[in-house]
Order: sequence, then C-alpha cells, then structure tokens
Amino acid sequence: MLIKEKVEQAVGILKENNVDCWITFVRESGIVHDPMLDYLISADVTWHSAFIITKSGETYAIVGQMDTATIEDLGVYTQVLGYVEGIKEHLTTAIKDIDPSSIAINYSKGSEISDGLTHGMYLTLYEILSEIGYAEKIISAEKIASSLKARKTDYELERMTRAIEHTLDIISKVTSFIAPGKTEKEIAAFMIQEVENRGLGFAWEKSHCPAVFTGPETAEAHYKPTDRKVEPGHVLNMDFGVKFEDYCSDIQRTFYILEDGETRAPEDVQKGFDTIVTAIELARQAIGPGIQGVEIDKIAREHIVSLGYEEFPHGLGHQVGRFAHDGTALLGPAWEKYAQKPFQLLEEGMVFTIEPRLKVPDRGVVTIEEMVVITKGGAEFLAEPQKEIILINAD
Amino acid sequence: MLIKEKVEQAVGILKENNVDCWITFVRESGIVHDPMLDYLISADVTWHSAFIITKSGETYAIVGQMDTATIEDLGVYTQVLGYVEGIKEHLTTAIKDIDPSSIAINYSKGSEISDGLTHGMYLTLYEILSEIGYAEKIISAEKIASSLKARKTDYELERMTRAIEHTLDIISKVTSFIAPGKTEKEIAAFMIQEVENRGLGFAWEKSHCPAVFTGPETAEAHYKPTDRKVEPGHVLNMDFGVKFEDYCSDIQRTFYILEDGETRAPEDVQKGFDTIVTAIELARQAIGPGIQGVEIDKIAREHIVSLGYEEFPHGLGHQVGRFAHDGTALLGPAWEKYAQKPFQLLEEGMVFTIEPRLKVPDRGVVTIEEMVVITKGGAEFLAEPQKEIILINAD
Repeated sequence: MLIKEKVEQAVGILKENNVDCWITFVRESGIVHDPMLDYLISADVTWHSAFIITKSGETYAIVGQMDTATIEDLGVYTQVLGYVEGIKEHLTTAIKDIDPSSIAINYSKGSEISDGLTHGMYLTLYEILSEIGYAEKIISAEKIASSLKARKTDYELERMTRAIEHTLDIISKVTSFIAPGKTEKEIAAFMIQEVENRGLGFAWEKSHCPAVFTGPETAEAHYKPTDRKVEPGHVLNMDFGVKFEDYCSDIQRTFYILEDGETRAPEDVQKGFDTIVTAIELARQAIGPGIQGVEIDKIAREHIVSLGYEEFPHGLGHQVGRFAHDGTALLGPAWEKYAQKPFQLLEEGMVFTIEPRLKVPDRGVVTIEEMVVITKGGAEFLAEPQKEIILINAD
Repeated sequence: MLIKEKVEQAVGILKENNVDCWITFVRESGIVHDPMLDYLISADVTWHSAFIITKSGETYAIVGQMDTATIEDLGVYTQVLGYVEGIKEHLTTAIKDIDPSSIAINYSKGSEISDGLTHGMYLTLYEILSEIGYAEKIISAEKIASSLKARKTDYELERMTRAIEHTLDIISKVTSFIAPGKTEKEIAAFMIQEVENRGLGFAWEKSHCPAVFTGPETAEAHYKPTDRKVEPGHVLNMDFGVKFEDYCSDIQRTFYILEDGETRAPEDVQKGFDTIVTAIELARQAIGPGIQGVEIDKIAREHIVSLGYEEFPHGLGHQVGRFAHDGTALLGPAWEKYAQKPFQLLEEGMVFTIEPRLKVPDRGVVTIEEMVVITKGGAEFLAEPQKEIILINAD
C-alpha cells in the first residue's frame, strides 16, 4: 500500500523534475540500508539489486534470483529480473532499453536521506554505466529523494498522528510519577515500559529515548538519563518520540518542580517558558510553502536573543517521518554543517518540529518541541501545543 | 568493553597493515549506519562525525557539541572534539597533526561491511582533505574493516555461542509442534513467540525469520512463511537465527514428515540428507587459516554434483557476527557478484556458516546450515551438527 503509493508519487516527481530515470542501487540492505528502500521494497535484499523508476512509469527490479519471489509479491514492478551470478547483464540491458538522458542516483553532500548509495557501490555502478556510455548521464537524486520524503501521503500522516497521540499520552501518564527524589533513569524506565506495553517502537535509540534532563547541571541534550534526582526549584525537560507502524513522533515538554509554598513557577522560569512558547508560535505563523527555512529559524532565534538569552546551539526544527530526523529542508541557520538545507523552499505536506531552547540559570533548560504540518496556506500543529508549564508538587 | 577491545584490535590491525590512520566519517548514523560504527561508538551521532584511529594508538572523535558527552563516557578516545557550526576546522587540524602517509576510509567495491561511507560523504571528505593536500593519501579500509569484523574476541564468541544455543533449543521445541496440517506461518509464529518470550532479537527481518519451507513447491529460500500446509511424504526445512546481545546465529535444519506406516525417511530423502551431511563434513575438514574460500565451496559443490544433484545457486557459506551475513571472506564460487570475496585467505577467529542445499524431487529441499569457528589448525563446529533427519509423525 505505502510502496504502491510512493512509487506512483516518485513517477510524478520524476516528471516534475524532467528526470528520465532514478536508480536505487544496493546490496545486503540489512547491513547498510539506503533510506529510499523503505518506499521501494518490503524486505531486505541480499545481493546487488537495482530498483529503477522511469518518468514514463515503467519500473524495474533487478535482484538476486532468491529474492525475486518477495519482490514479485509487491505487484509494483513491471519487470522483476532475477540473476544468479551477477547483475551486470540485466542492468545494462534495462538501461539500454530505457535509453535515459538523465540517471538520478542516491548521493548528496548536503542531504543524508538522499545519500544512501555507498562509495563502493557508486564505483561499481559508474563502471557498469561507463561501459555502455551512460556514465555521464548520472545526476544526484537529491530532489527526487527529498520530495518523496517530504510529501506525506494520508497513509503517512495518519501514522504520525497516532505516534504523537501515544507520545503525549505517555507524557501525561508520567507526570503523576515525577516527584522530587525520582531519578532521570527511573522516569525514563517508566516511559519505556509504557512504550513496550503498547507494542510501539522508539523514535530513536532506546538508551536515549526518552532523554530526561533535570536541573541546571545536565548535558542539556542528546544524552542518556542519569542518576540525577528531581529537585524542587529545578526545571525538568524531556525529549521523547515513538514509532507507530514505522512513523515517528518527536516531542519535548518542560516541567517545573514546585518548592515548598510555591503554587506556580517563579518569574525567571515563567519568563523563559513564555519566551519559548512565543518563539514557537511566531515561527509557526511564518511557515508556509515557498519560504526558506533559514527565515523561520531567524524569527525564533532573534526573539529569544532579544529577550537576553543565548541563542540555541542547533537548528530550530527538522522534518520528521520514518526517522525522527528526516528530509532535507531544515528550519536552521546558515551553518557549515547544514549546507544547503536551510535554503530549500518549504513545501505543502512537509512535517516539521519547532524546538527552540534556552537556559534559565540555576534552574535548568526550558525547551518545547512541537510538530506541525505545512498546508497550502501555512502550518498547523499536529497536536495541542504546550502552553502552560507542567507543575510538579514538592511532596 | 566491546568498543575498548575493538579499538585496541584496530590499532594492531593498522600496525600489521602499516596504515597510518583510519577514518570512519558519518552523519545522522540512525539514518545510514556504517557497520564499523558498532565497534567505535555506543549510540548514534547526529552531525558530521569523524572517528580517527591511528597506528600509534592515538584516537580522535570529532562530533557535534551535543554528542560529546556520550562519546566522552566511552573513555576510548584520547581526544573528543566538539563543534557547533561545522566539522572542517577540527578535522583539518587533526589530520595535519597526524600527518599520515595513508588514510584508510570505509569504501569497497567487493565488501559491503567495508563500504559504509556514502558517496556524498566521500565527496565531502575528499574536498576537505584536498584543501590541505591529503586527498591523495586516501586508500580503501577494506583490509582493516574485514579483519576487525573477522577476528572475533572471546566477548563476541561467547555471545554467538549463546545465540546458537537459543536457536537450537527453539528448533527442538518446535519439533513437537510441527505436524501434518500445520502451516508454515503457524510454525513460524510458534518460534517467533519463543524468541520474544526470551527477550532475544531476530538475526534478520522478523517477517522472514524463521523462513519455513515445506514440500516441493516452495520459493526454496529467502521467502516468508506461507499458508502452505505440512504434508506426509514431504521434506520441511527452516532457516532461523536469533540475536543475543547484538550477535547472531544462522542455522538451518531439515525435517521429514512420515507417511502412514513409515518409520524412517524413504531412500531418496535419506540419500539427499546424507549427501548434505557429508558435504558439510568434507568442507569443515578442509577449512583452515591461509586457505581460500573458493576451494572449500568447490569441495562441497562437487560432492553434491557428483551424486547427481544440481549445484546450489549460492555460496557455500558466509561469515556471521553482528549481522547474519557478515565479513568479507566467503566460502563461495568465482561469480561476478562475489567479486574478490572467495579469494580472501581464511583467518583464525572467523565464524562461517556451511550451508549446501539440494532438491529431492516431489519431496522438497534438503538443507542444513552449521556454524564453525576457524582455529589455528582447522575449524570446529560451534554446536552439535545435525546428523539425523528430524522425523515428524504423521498423526
């Protein structure tokens, strides 16, 4: 179902970009897995395999003989060709039949989801195409891969919405578990158990999912839960996502642990929290098709800096899909590591996180991560955003 | 523990091959995962990251700032360097400090476990090294990656042995479940439940693990279990492996379903079975350090053909490790798709499968897959090999 839909979408994207054919070239896909394969096949392949989609709608799967039955079952490829000794013969015949003036392959300096072709496999493909005079037709499939990743079908959006629902529900459940004296590890363990009870997957490695940070002395992000204990007067934040039928959520929420006698967060914490909420809303309102992500990042970054905080040391938001970090276009600053990503135009159907952060001295890190989908006219939250800091009682 | 051991092993392998430094260069390793990373880090990294091991024993990890804490915890890298905007500055400084006359990187046409560097990342690294005059020092890390994969430490062998024990135990349990009328899917479901009850992983995709084939009309290999029912007079075989603490087993066993009145397998089935048992034993006896895999494949292949059967359409055996199909050296024929693999010399510490197969007309496929470890003087089975066909009663 997904594969049929995505292969049809790919044909449309090839037409749009006037690219004659797109080859995903892999081997032992259980060892190194090109992310495009998830839209092309349902089970790993063993030997050199080429999945070719053409602008005219013809589709070829050339695979080891023992993998043909599984591929035929998909009912997606007009030609399924099996071989025993080597792929070269079938592959050169297919390319000569197609006679393309452009051959897109999965490599990109600036987009990891478009860069599933290994260098050794590139050399092999280049050699095969050279022998028949097609090597100079090679182009990067970055545009094709990026659009295929970005344009979520209803099937995909439905799964992401379910993943988000579970995520928020588990966060809501753990709220009554969090208390002074509980460790980050204990809080994470509670949530992991919930994920497993529900038969869900983790949006990233279980050892870091959820990530839980309490107080001012943490690693701040991308670190596993520790034995650090929840303390009154501290801010706690968590970064958490699940996988529902292969699609991810990625959400952050901020908590404050009340001190004796407090009934609300103190001013410094509240100001930090409000700054983040406003930064997210300003960013969301500015998002829409045809805009560059760098502009959106700037809006949130400047708002935070203008209120006297340090700028956050990462992009404002990334796409989400089958991976927690997905897609090419990014809501990010013009930093070396982000390459061309912040300058790509946003498109309808993209799902983004918005996740600014700031430090409140002696309290901890305030950060919220929401998820939005880009529509014709703007961007909509995929779930109710956090508007109030979650308060934990001291006793 | 594993990482410390493997990084030390890598330093030794660099010395042995007189290679000055080895760079594993990755980004978003949750999206495309270089298999070498499993020996270098314990959790995925987000941004461009370089893990550099030198012949002199110095080790560098250059990663995004937010990933540094996790890397420092490993206690394996003499230098952990974090960056916010881009990796180039730290990376060029490190390379100039090392001033290597050879830089091994993870690409290979003929070895997928040595080919984790994507083409886009190759282009990025090439450009960075070019600017400081080191691009022409690049060589393939195939030898280093292959030896690191192949030479199993005690830690690794212990986990593989446990994986095999569980595998054989589950096969033994399912034997009393198999009966005429049961479907391949039901048999697989029974075994999957056992894997999950034991908290084990699957050695390959759950949809195809175990693979169960009954009777003469199956896809024969690499196909998921179907609604085909077990029938008296047929041969059933299964291909099954589990993961115990990240290390795999890969085992096949053959069963015969007795017809009314039969107390043993009929002659045609028995002859096929004995042929496979002998082929495996002949191969095992010939295995040892310094021999080429192509020679071993030939021994088993010729034995089977000499008794009037068709040759099997795949190599005789592959290495096993963190993947069910692991390593570079192969017990296989000189076919295009196997490239240089069958000609690599076997080494002590390698773990191989031996898995010939043949068809018995109107009965099914007879196949056994055993696992052996190469020792100083030869090769030893890692568990009791199958010597008798497993008989299933008709009622």
